[in-house]
Amino acid sequence: MVQCESIRATVISSVTAKPEAHIESGRLLNRFFAVRQHSLEITANLDGEDLLVQSMPDVSPGKWHLAHTSWFFETFVLKADAQYAVFDASFEHLFNSYYNAVGPQFARDRRGMISRPNLGQVLDYRSHVDSHMAQLLESGDCSEEILAIVELGLNHEQQHQELMLMDIKHVLFQNPNFPAYKAIPPPASPPARPSLWLDVDGGMSQMGHCGDGFCFDNELPQHPTLLSPHRLADRLVTNAEYLAFIGDGGYEKSALWLSDGWSIINTERWQAPLYWVKTDHGWQEFTLNGLRPLDPAGPVAHVSFYEADAYASWAGHRLPTEAEWEHSADKVGQPAGTLVPLPAGPHWPQFTGALWQWTRSAYQPYPGFSAPPGALGEYNGKFMCSQMVLRGSSFATPRGHARTTYRNFFYPHQRWMFSGIRLADDL
Amino acid sequence: MVQCESIRATVISSVTAKPEAHIESGRLLNRFFAVRQHSLEITANLDGEDLLVQSMPDVSPGKWHLAHTSWFFETFVLKADAQYAVFDASFEHLFNSYYNAVGPQFARDRRGMISRPNLGQVLDYRSHVDSHMAQLLESGDCSEEILAIVELGLNHEQQHQELMLMDIKHVLFQNPNFPAYKAIPPPASPPARPSLWLDVDGGMSQMGHCGDGFCFDNELPQHPTLLSPHRLADRLVTNAEYLAFIGDGGYEKSALWLSDGWSIINTERWQAPLYWVKTDHGWQEFTLNGLRPLDPAGPVAHVSFYEADAYASWAGHRLPTEAEWEHSADKVGQPAGTLVPLPAGPHWPQFTGALWQWTRSAYQPYPGFSAPPGALGEYNGKFMCSQMVLRGSSFATPRGHARTTYRNFFYPHQRWMFSGIRLADDL
Amino acid sequence: MVQCESIRATVISSVTAKPEAHIESGRLLNRFFAVRQHSLEITANLDGEDLLVQSMPDVSPGKWHLAHTSWFFETFVLKADAQYAVFDASFEHLFNSYYNAVGPQFARDRRGMISRPNLGQVLDYRSHVDSHMAQLLESGDCSEEILAIVELGLNHEQQHQELMLMDIKHVLFQNPNFPAYKAIPPPASPPARPSLWLDVDGGMSQMGHCGDGFCFDNELPQHPTLLSPHRLADRLVTNAEYLAFIGDGGYEKSALWLSDGWSIINTERWQAPLYWVKTDHGWQEFTLNGLRPLDPAGPVAHVSFYEADAYASWAGHRLPTEAEWEHSADKVGQPAGTLVPLPAGPHWPQFTGALWQWTRSAYQPYPGFSAPPGALGEYNGKFMCSQMVLRGSSFATPRGHARTTYRNFFYPHQRWMFSGIRLADDL
Amino acid sequence: MVQCESIRATVISSVTAKPEAHIESGRLLNRFFAVRQHSLEITANLDGEDLLVQSMPDVSPGKWHLAHTSWFFETFVLKADAQYAVFDASFEHLFNSYYNAVGPQFARDRRGMISRPNLGQVLDYRSHVDSHMAQLLESGDCSEEILAIVELGLNHEQQHQELMLMDIKHVLFQNPNFPAYKAIPPPASPPARPSLWLDVDGGMSQMGHCGDGFCFDNELPQHPTLLSPHRLADRLVTNAEYLAFIGDGGYEKSALWLSDGWSIINTERWQAPLYWVKTDHGWQEFTLNGLRPLDPAGPVAHVSFYEADAYASWAGHRLPTEAEWEHSADKVGQPAGTLVPLPAGPHWPQFTGALWQWTRSAYQPYPGFSAPPGALGEYNGKFMCSQMVLRGSSFATPRGHARTTYRNFFYPHQRWMFSGIRLADDL
Repeated sequence: MVQCESIRATVISSVTAKPEAHIESGRLLNRFFAVRQHSLEITANLDGEDLLVQSMPDVSPGKWHLAHTSWFFETFVLKADAQYAVFDASFEHLFNSYYNAVGPQFARDRRGMISRPNLGQVLDYRSHVDSHMAQLLESGDCSEEILAIVELGLNHEQQHQELMLMDIKHVLFQNPNFPAYKAIPPPASPPARPSLWLDVDGGMSQMGHCGDGFCFDNELPQHPTLLSPHRLADRLVTNAEYLAFIGDGGYEKSALWLSDGWSIINTERWQAPLYWVKTDHGWQEFTLNGLRPLDPAGPVAHVSFYEADAYASWAGHRLPTEAEWEHSADKVGQPAGTLVPLPAGPHWPQFTGALWQWTRSAYQPYPGFSAPPGALGEYNGKFMCSQMVLRGSSFATPRGHARTTYRNFFYPHQRWMFSGIRLADDL
Repeated sequence: MVQCESIRATVISSVTAKPEAHIESGRLLNRFFAVRQHSLEITANLDGEDLLVQSMPDVSPGKWHLAHTSWFFETFVLKADAQYAVFDASFEHLFNSYYNAVGPQFARDRRGMISRPNLGQVLDYRSHVDSHMAQLLESGDCSEEILAIVELGLNHEQQHQELMLMDIKHVLFQNPNFPAYKAIPPPASPPARPSLWLDVDGGMSQMGHCGDGFCFDNELPQHPTLLSPHRLADRLVTNAEYLAFIGDGGYEKSALWLSDGWSIINTERWQAPLYWVKTDHGWQEFTLNGLRPLDPAGPVAHVSFYEADAYASWAGHRLPTEAEWEHSADKVGQPAGTLVPLPAGPHWPQFTGALWQWTRSAYQPYPGFSAPPGALGEYNGKFMCSQMVLRGSSFATPRGHARTTYRNFFYPHQRWMFSGIRLADDL
Repeated sequence: MVQCESIRATVISSVTAKPEAHIESGRLLNRFFAVRQHSLEITANLDGEDLLVQSMPDVSPGKWHLAHTSWFFETFVLKADAQYAVFDASFEHLFNSYYNAVGPQFARDRRGMISRPNLGQVLDYRSHVDSHMAQLLESGDCSEEILAIVELGLNHEQQHQELMLMDIKHVLFQNPNFPAYKAIPPPASPPARPSLWLDVDGGMSQMGHCGDGFCFDNELPQHPTLLSPHRLADRLVTNAEYLAFIGDGGYEKSALWLSDGWSIINTERWQAPLYWVKTDHGWQEFTLNGLRPLDPAGPVAHVSFYEADAYASWAGHRLPTEAEWEHSADKVGQPAGTLVPLPAGPHWPQFTGALWQWTRSAYQPYPGFSAPPGALGEYNGKFMCSQMVLRGSSFATPRGHARTTYRNFFYPHQRWMFSGIRLADDL
Repeated sequence: MVQCESIRATVISSVTAKPEAHIESGRLLNRFFAVRQHSLEITANLDGEDLLVQSMPDVSPGKWHLAHTSWFFETFVLKADAQYAVFDASFEHLFNSYYNAVGPQFARDRRGMISRPNLGQVLDYRSHVDSHMAQLLESGDCSEEILAIVELGLNHEQQHQELMLMDIKHVLFQNPNFPAYKAIPPPASPPARPSLWLDVDGGMSQMGHCGDGFCFDNELPQHPTLLSPHRLADRLVTNAEYLAFIGDGGYEKSALWLSDGWSIINTERWQAPLYWVKTDHGWQEFTLNGLRPLDPAGPVAHVSFYEADAYASWAGHRLPTEAEWEHSADKVGQPAGTLVPLPAGPHWPQFTGALWQWTRSAYQPYPGFSAPPGALGEYNGKFMCSQMVLRGSSFATPRGHARTTYRNFFYPHQRWMFSGIRLADDL
């Protein structure tokens, strides 16, 4: 167990981002354009109408995402220069998400009401911000603090890239014609192999980010944690397994459910994961490729924490804690994808790149956590209540964005994100 | 008092529209294109995003209006021909407003969720319907019943033309930048002259439509009604007069309000008509030309029935009944605009063309009313409960659409339509 | 047709009650104690707990009724004497129903929260008020205006007596044990005879109250009205008839329903009248005598206006207007019960004493109506919007309280009152 | 650090209660009557009406508490004997709180609708249960399992005793007369001394219950936990201190609040703790002794987690974790009240007996936790989501009920319980 020497230093950093020691503006510039371009690629085959709909308060219109990610750079980087002329003064209000320290926000649940600026004007806004950002980064005249904020802004935009996919999927699902986002259907999963267990002895383990790379403030400080002996499944629960749970009356057996979960499945009449559609030809699943037959071997997706927890109870297991998850993810695989040898031949343990995985851990501050001062301190800390942590990453997470220390978080009833289930046990 | 011979004949007509006796298809074809073209003119300076927003459940997106008015002709005229190939089978569901006899409707309050078909596709749908309608009307091979439905469809589309203006005004008002629908501000009203009274002796009066022209089923049958001696104001209440009501604490005096009205102004915190905005420069009014200083001489607009009734109480008067309104409108002016001589020189009594005018009459069937059978019977009759009648027409009503027997109706709390106040008194 | 000479005189009366010309205080005193005693009899077999529950916002606890009816006399009669010492100053607020001119009211939907004063203290309050009222009435020193308010107060209390029975029925219905209010089951109705029609020629008819007896302000002024030729059923619709409507899918056929009615039966999942309970032994009905098998010959009760209207549509008839109802009730029977000869032998036309009967008339002011000034002007006028008129009286209406000119009114969705259905037709 | 040998044994116990090894029925019988009697004492000066009101869905009527605590013994102890005749079969449904395994429950938010059984009948029910319980316990013929359930039932009743006080306080607060539960005002607190800090080195610590005494399943298993260096305040935050927070605009500064907290204080317009009433004479506090001037030296009570957290942020501190709290409570004081020497002379550190204290820990299962099978397994485990842990006990907690390992839990927005604030810091 190697301890992280840099914990304290990180925490006192005035922004949440940890800049690499001697970052070169040039390299950041390339990365800036790559990330910014990716947002446009995601929305390339959608028009202004697709990008305007807000299908529920949790969802934001695609156009809003395109504007808000630009607003982030304008607000926290470009406006630091008193010479900078804002693109449109009203955008400060319109495209602020939740930064009270910046000013009041246009009501979140009314974002779909804003037809103007239209998509073309928002794309102009992006260009305006991009050209000023390019000037700044090319000038080489950036403080380390500014560079750190740029890095944070890029990670922020990557988060919104996944949100855009979550949101446009939800938007298209409202349409009774179930239009596809993409026309190319994905290959079917290979037959699911039996799940194996990754056994872990108890003991002390380091948890949280350590090192020079970027991380969010909620991954800090690295700190020791005590693990009990336990084991984790080496793959996610499949659609076929979840169907067995449904078939066994899982949604009708109160004993399997947390009290709040039992309440919501009855109030909302949930009978299956979000996006499952019962048709004359059996269960189908709405995907970014349209409505498709459920793939039995694919990992079950779009479940709430309550459903994940009830499934685990039904199966005689439990969900992992985030400490357990992080420990095994560190041991078993790397984000880059090379795996340690595992009992049953080469396979993919799905820690990353498939679906985010509910843990049984509430989203709370690490010991010693403190949010940075100012508006950027609102990034993570103020949400540390009533939400649950998900770990890993999904197929929709931009490449290179996530880490094994990455903490995603949602309310236990939410399920429009790409969420799945990994099982665990005490030993 | 001339009685209407044609009452019974009208009522037994199998559709709500009363075709002119020997209508010529050719003349109807011209009218068809003129009306259809006008819908496109109304939306010409709006884009797909402006036409997608649904700002409240009462509002429909402009794109939906463009599609639904085409759906009406496709459903009730074109589909009568078994050879006709529908443009898109899913539209039957998507663009049905409330005709249960046709089939289930896509949820009204979710119309703003439908990004696809996009605006371009809906315009193609309109062209498709228009070309088939042209073929049909040019063929001269139409039954009187079909011609009557076409006439109903055109009147239906004219109603939606006013709704489109109501709705787009409400949509643009959600935007904190208060964008204008039109760039050209209207001329200010001339100074308001004092209101005069039109005195009416009591007695029997005919009420309801009579004659060959089109009318809706709710204007039938013409029937005698008994009027008490009364008088009506010869113009609408002005903004300046309504300001005096506000200034006198009108919104704080419970004695002036109907019980339900007092409840809603407190729950919703209404302090003024819809679209009035209190700024550092005093009250302004959001108009189709953007935010503008309140015009003191203009008629107060966008008031609910509760506000109209409370204003009348405050002013020591009452609202007219619809029988009273119809009687005086018939005597004083004609829709065409020529007026009988009035006490104080030439002026405009605003019965039509300014704002719809709340009456104190609940929207109920006339004696002997019966809705036609089938889906078109759902046009008016099923709404005859809990709503109040407004009479006249507004500046936004298509020219030639309204009549003095025309019955518009809204719930007493609604106020996004172009509604105003005319006073009356018992004598 | 005899006209009422006293219309104008009545309207200018400063209170809503019309005192008999030379009323004797002594006679009023006897009536005072009789009416007051009846409220106690209604609640005699209920305890403080039964009389505290508020089962929905429309319902008031029995204890509240007992207090509020005393509050009425204290507020509008006793407090006129500056010497009078109020029983408890906090009651002015606690037991004000809706008189804004008196002061703010304790929230209507929170009346069931008030455990103190408890029932004993409220009964003391009644005694206190009664003894002071007795002193006043015995003194013979009352102005005509005061006597008129006392008369109004007694009619007010009688209205609350029926409300108490409506409310306690609703309260007991919340209990899954379906406790009975009374232990004695009523005799079954005799087999229903076929419904006959009462034919009425069109013409002018007087409507509204005329004469010396008490009436409410909303029954004034008497005025001529014009009737079309029509007919009314000579009895109410029975449970057996309504069962046939249900059996024919009445609640599933949208074409039968007003739009708002169709909406509410689907939202609330109504399948039958209120208080109908589907058991293993078929439909049962909760009554003041507990849960009992549905009586086929009894009149269907506890239907909303929407259900009454849909039933009438299904049966091929309509509901009567209030003018039609009043005209036939005047001709056919008297409140005292002696009937004019009817086509098919002696029977009971159920105009009074069975169930209130929905009319198709919205509750609106009569021509020339004006509410009296001050708090008592809030009695009726401010509710003249969005409600429908019911006519007649029910088995729960205190004897002698109602008249053929009496106007009861409820919102079209309400059905906890004793409401039934009489059919009508155009001729 | 002594480890607990009995962890595993406890967890496999078939009920949640841990019976003392050789408990004597006789001793338990005495305790049974003492606890049962205390419930009657709490409600002695309240009548049937006070004990019927349900002032919000979280609150239960006092009568319901009296019945439900009897239901617990009837359901889980007496019904195990097939000979036992239930008092009233309908009570199984009426007074089940949330045990799905027992059967459906009468809707929680409708408990205030149940006037029958009335208070007298519920007291008879208590007597019936008590006499059968006495027979059983006197017989000496009880399995260890039954004795353990009896012990659990007594602890359950003690929890409801505190709930009764919470609930009746809330009920009386609805009354604008602010009636007192008790007539005897409490002595004022002594002047608050400055807060001192209890410093704790980091390291391993045992957490959770160990030993023979009763505990709830959620206190198990005892397990090691890792503490960081930290310190805890040696007393609770006072009203005077909280007033300073309010005076400094604490409720207007978004930066101090968790996101959900900021949302709720704005939606609900919270400006102060529950029960604080702003009067012409300044802030007053509603207490069980009625409305009284705020005691500056008393601990601030009835704050939500959000308010506790915001106060701590404002003061530059944080809330303790439950592990930290338990560690210091074990070191500093005992439930019996003898304290280790503290820096500044004799005083009361308020770990127990004053107010429950919010921790920053979400209510989650301890490592290795498993709920017992059957209905009693629903006691705690199914609530382990979205709630926060409070530790200690309050002045309203029955003497002898709580322990330093005791875990109380509420949603972060709730504040009708006797909750307070203890501060902590990282070191």
